[in-house]
Amino acid sequence: MIEDKNPKRTPLSELGEFKLIEHLTNHFEINQKSTVKGIGDDAAILSFEDKDLVISTDLLVEGVHFDLSYVPLKHLGYKAVMVNLSDIYAMNAIATQITVSIAVSNRFPLEALEELYAGISTAAKLYNVDVVGGDTTSSTSGLIISITALGEVEKGNQVLRSGAKPNDLLVVTGDIGGAYMGLQILEREKEVFKVNPQSQPDLSMYTYIVERQLKPEARKDMVELLKQLDVKPTSMIDISDGLSSEVIHLCKQSKVGVDVYENKIPLDPQVIATCEEFNIDSTTVALNGGEDYELLMTISQEDYPKIKGNPNLSVIGYMTEERKGMHLVTRAEEKIPIIAKGWNALNNQP
Amino acid sequence: MIEDKNPKRTPLSELGEFKLIEHLTNHFEINQKSTVKGIGDDAAILSFEDKDLVISTDLLVEGVHFDLSYVPLKHLGYKAVMVNLSDIYAMNAIATQITVSIAVSNRFPLEALEELYAGISTAAKLYNVDVVGGDTTSSTSGLIISITALGEVEKGNQVLRSGAKPNDLLVVTGDIGGAYMGLQILEREKEVFKVNPQSQPDLSMYTYIVERQLKPEARKDMVELLKQLDVKPTSMIDISDGLSSEVIHLCKQSKVGVDVYENKIPLDPQVIATCEEFNIDSTTVALNGGEDYELLMTISQEDYPKIKGNPNLSVIGYMTEERKGMHLVTRAEEKIPIIAKGWNALNNQP
Repeated sequence: MIEDKNPKRTPLSELGEFKLIEHLTNHFEINQKSTVKGIGDDAAILSFEDKDLVISTDLLVEGVHFDLSYVPLKHLGYKAVMVNLSDIYAMNAIATQITVSIAVSNRFPLEALEELYAGISTAAKLYNVDVVGGDTTSSTSGLIISITALGEVEKGNQVLRSGAKPNDLLVVTGDIGGAYMGLQILEREKEVFKVNPQSQPDLSMYTYIVERQLKPEARKDMVELLKQLDVKPTSMIDISDGLSSEVIHLCKQSKVGVDVYENKIPLDPQVIATCEEFNIDSTTVALNGGEDYELLMTISQEDYPKIKGNPNLSVIGYMTEERKGMHLVTRAEEKIPIIAKGWNALNNQP
Repeated sequence: MIEDKNPKRTPLSELGEFKLIEHLTNHFEINQKSTVKGIGDDAAILSFEDKDLVISTDLLVEGVHFDLSYVPLKHLGYKAVMVNLSDIYAMNAIATQITVSIAVSNRFPLEALEELYAGISTAAKLYNVDVVGGDTTSSTSGLIISITALGEVEKGNQVLRSGAKPNDLLVVTGDIGGAYMGLQILEREKEVFKVNPQSQPDLSMYTYIVERQLKPEARKDMVELLKQLDVKPTSMIDISDGLSSEVIHLCKQSKVGVDVYENKIPLDPQVIATCEEFNIDSTTVALNGGEDYELLMTISQEDYPKIKGNPNLSVIGYMTEERKGMHLVTRAEEKIPIIAKGWNALNNQP
């Protein structure tokens, strides 16, 4: 499906490990004040002065987390960074550095790795994070990307999953379900392509949801917005595995219950239209879809006037006593228990 | 070669991703003052106060960096931690935290991952580092381990690769070449086992070198010793790829030359004996072997009295002007150029 516009294929073995790492990383700039020394020694040196440091790590595996038959390598590099930054923003912190490790089989030419690193580099620049370290090695099969992200937060300003209280409002940023429906479109086109490799897919009707899947944006802007609005959430998590799974995390770690209102869940019209086309329930997609990388948070009722009417923040429910349990209140005003059916990397094994 | 003493095999899919992570990580203790919050949120929270932070990351891939036919999983977990801590000590820092990400195919039962984590846990306890995060996911083929290590160092106390000056002494800790010869023994026994699976290998003659390969120790003790001796090296690196490769790194980054004396390179008698048995030149093994995880450093001549006679520290040469080049001075007093032939993960592709 993806045309190879670059006919040049330089085998990785031509460079060797050290030269490859140097070639891929020598253009990374250092912009963060906290980066004392970046790539080029046994370790990077960082200095966070009076701030606290947050750190998170994720592993993306070809064939499990991504399918190179429809994911361009540049987008993959970008998304791999987003997945990690999203965890940092979910702590109410600002991302400052990443390390990037790649294992790659020799079926990839140098030019493919350059594409991947171009995406990583673009993401790093846009989100103002320094790439301070990494490892590049061979793999016996596919491509594996391991990123560790660091961020800084004023002492006491971090937001955990465990701080929600009964009566707090449950708030979600942006809209959800798009990334999952984008994946359905891409999977469908892949099947069409298998049958007829000459077909030219028209994805213009699905631009938004396909981009949500291929090139998600971590919500740094929402951390900045919350600061502007002077709202410190009582708890927060990023939506990587689906709304229901993340709601359960907040409830369990905060020891509270929740009522989520089906009619308040923010859905893009393209998500609704595509759900109709695929004959899938859009609420199911929103609850279990995953990969939206929006932020889910609870805020105190006192803060409601500060967020009221803001198009980026939707109140979708409120927290209750733990003993009341976790429920979805449907459009028909039925209460049904929320169960995690989020995307599970270990059950999706080939 | 390795007997399966544990007949219980619980499929990973029985637990699911969240429960698996919880099961594997719930016993990790937090001991470091700088760990504010460990595993269990979107990110860990750390606080380094007035110290600088160093960070390093490594990726280990089955079939490239290790062979499970003779590496017990517990040893592998231990070694994976050592490989990373070694980079931290090479900065003259003390390791404080690690994050551990694992991708694993479903041919591994839960009990295998428990073994791996037991090794990680043992290493973390012995070296006093907190395991503060990680990711566990499936892979389409083998086992991949990605560890990021953090350490702390008093501001200004870090030692880079770039600080060596002409006339500085080149010093190596412990002895080298053992890990490589241990690997030769294990590879030989693997071939014997293939021909005759009933054979019981007698490795008692090779205990030291096999242990150097399977269960290396990172030289935290040497960082402590240097502090006791009040010696701050002018440059330092850990020996992961072989002495020649690391010497070249120090010289290039410090813009100096070097004379290394063949007869000063510290070799264990078992390395010498095994080299004779395999009919390999022991100096070649020391120069190109790799995986010893000793520290290679340069120190000012003024500090020589402080290290003189210490059995842990061997002076093996001295730094020269850059234009004089990098040479090995042989036992026959010939000068031959030092060339990197270190182990290269990208040329060792299957």
